[in-house]
Amino acid sequence: MTEFSPADRLFMGRALRLARRPAQPPHPNPRVGCVLVRDGRIVGEGWHERAGEPHAEAMALQRAGEQASGATAYVTLEPCSHHGRTPPCSDALLAAGVVRVVAGMTDSNPEVAGRGLRRLRSAGLEVGQGLMAAEAAALNPGFIHRMRHGRPFVRLKSAASLDGRTAMASGESRWITSSQARADVHRWRARSDAILTGIGTVRADNPRLDVRDAGLTEPRQPRRVVLDRRLQTPTDAALLKGHGATLFHGPEVEAARVRALTRAGARCVELPETPDGLDLSAALDWLGRQEVNEVLVEAGPVLGGGLFRAGLVDEWLLYQAPHLMGDSARPLLHWPGLDEMSQRRPLQVMDCRMVGPDLRLTLRPAAAS
Amino acid sequence: MTEFSPADRLFMGRALRLARRPAQPPHPNPRVGCVLVRDGRIVGEGWHERAGEPHAEAMALQRAGEQASGATAYVTLEPCSHHGRTPPCSDALLAAGVVRVVAGMTDSNPEVAGRGLRRLRSAGLEVGQGLMAAEAAALNPGFIHRMRHGRPFVRLKSAASLDGRTAMASGESRWITSSQARADVHRWRARSDAILTGIGTVRADNPRLDVRDAGLTEPRQPRRVVLDRRLQTPTDAALLKGHGATLFHGPEVEAARVRALTRAGARCVELPETPDGLDLSAALDWLGRQEVNEVLVEAGPVLGGGLFRAGLVDEWLLYQAPHLMGDSARPLLHWPGLDEMSQRRPLQVMDCRMVGPDLRLTLRPAAAS
Repeated sequence: MTEFSPADRLFMGRALRLARRPAQPPHPNPRVGCVLVRDGRIVGEGWHERAGEPHAEAMALQRAGEQASGATAYVTLEPCSHHGRTPPCSDALLAAGVVRVVAGMTDSNPEVAGRGLRRLRSAGLEVGQGLMAAEAAALNPGFIHRMRHGRPFVRLKSAASLDGRTAMASGESRWITSSQARADVHRWRARSDAILTGIGTVRADNPRLDVRDAGLTEPRQPRRVVLDRRLQTPTDAALLKGHGATLFHGPEVEAARVRALTRAGARCVELPETPDGLDLSAALDWLGRQEVNEVLVEAGPVLGGGLFRAGLVDEWLLYQAPHLMGDSARPLLHWPGLDEMSQRRPLQVMDCRMVGPDLRLTLRPAAAS
Repeated sequence: MTEFSPADRLFMGRALRLARRPAQPPHPNPRVGCVLVRDGRIVGEGWHERAGEPHAEAMALQRAGEQASGATAYVTLEPCSHHGRTPPCSDALLAAGVVRVVAGMTDSNPEVAGRGLRRLRSAGLEVGQGLMAAEAAALNPGFIHRMRHGRPFVRLKSAASLDGRTAMASGESRWITSSQARADVHRWRARSDAILTGIGTVRADNPRLDVRDAGLTEPRQPRRVVLDRRLQTPTDAALLKGHGATLFHGPEVEAARVRALTRAGARCVELPETPDGLDLSAALDWLGRQEVNEVLVEAGPVLGGGLFRAGLVDEWLLYQAPHLMGDSARPLLHWPGLDEMSQRRPLQVMDCRMVGPDLRLTLRPAAAS
């Protein structure tokens, strides 16, 4: 393990902050920040703003100009060594005369991991890696997950009362949570590449599922995706307007229905079925192929419970409104067959905070205790 | 409003810490702390350890001896002016030559509120009141509540999964929460004057409901009280052992059953009934007459729901285990007739913290929003 100095930590901390600068992630690329330091002084800074625009290293080199010669480059992610939308950054660092590279984490794409750093090392540069690696990884949970598993990182959002209820028995549910919590959800939408919901939510609430209330002007809108086995989405559904929606359906649908929905703005994608409905793994695989890094699931108890049962939830955002709704109200997650304490699904509390009057918990699956 | 100096705040802060010193509250009296200061120096400190032992002022005066003459007394609660188990503290402060008294809050007993301070003022002492009054009040929520309403402060404790479930459909429920959370409950028991439960819990779990795991040697044991309309508590129930239990029952019980339970360690107390079961208000009134300041309710969904419905919960301690138990599991609170969002019961989050792997929320009723 390379030893790092306090100055190294300081500059990597700066690079991490730069990486977070874009208001929305540079989908489908990861967030990356870069700082060039010569003689203890920052001579160039950069970050990756948007796919197709310069990588963080390129921006920092451009700003540093001739001062990059002899500098140390702090990069949150291993510099790329392959020609993608832009030329390889490891070549650019070499060409500029950088003498030392410190990387936060190695590339999570197994095809290229470590290749960029090896190239730099073999060219005679001093290379350090793994400095603040956990913080660097936390920048890009979705990108890393997709590189490793070929599927997006699945973040399920739920809103419930403290007694775990999401709607009255009548279906009445507006609003469980505060306006502050609902605005917070828009910020999660803004960082997501797709919003996934079920046909039950579309029919009950006719949601738009777009980014409106996140403090962004003209935000990039995430894909809207509906699990709609029998293509029951109405052709005038709110989420077909504007940038349209993808509808996942099963094999038994009428061609005329597909045509009508396509005309209304839908992209209809057939998925295999399981006894429990559409194949959720296949849905996520498809989204992975579309380079979706993070998907936000906003759905009712059936889809939420189904994802948990299938072990497909990577993170659960649970908004708890400080209310009691009583035991005739609807449940948080539908989960048939969970009958014994030993079958309980264990989670780990990653974060807990107030959002207005509501609580927001961030949970991740835990090993069974 | 009297003006207070930074030094006044410092010394009152010390008095507040002294008040908290006893491991268990001096039931049925309030926690009180006192600091005597002369020429900027603490010359005596005291607190009320236990009913029948000296009040905080008496302890501080005894420790200060002749140095009390000319001193300022900082007392978290207005000094008493009546003869109770001990002589009035306002007289003792006068006799010792104290020249100024600063009180945190006035007595919450409406019969004596302000009387002690008026007596001191009319004797020529400088009197300030209301310094850090909220902190002083927070020492004794139960005592204050009983003085104002004649009933104990009701703290309901619940333990549930994140999806709001307290037992599997089979009734299996051991253990929902961690050992750390269960030890935390013992600390709440230790500060309570009574533990209230329902017959359902007694029959299902046969709990001891005593203080075992609170880090105390020979703790004072709170009263154990069961709402047991038809006197179904078994004569060999664990909570009849040791210091016994009070059983609240309805009018229609057999004298032989009362005798058998009395022999087994029970005190049987008849309460009026309502259409929903035993009259919960009458139960709390009875406990208030027994000088119970704080009651901890450890019960199932029926009693918990009943107390909420009747508006009788003053504080709700909700332990949330980071698990999912599914929607066939048992609910957190049974609440028939709650059918519309407008009927939701609003609460306010007072505190949220981790206890081991679990979350503990402290909630209080809020005005309808």
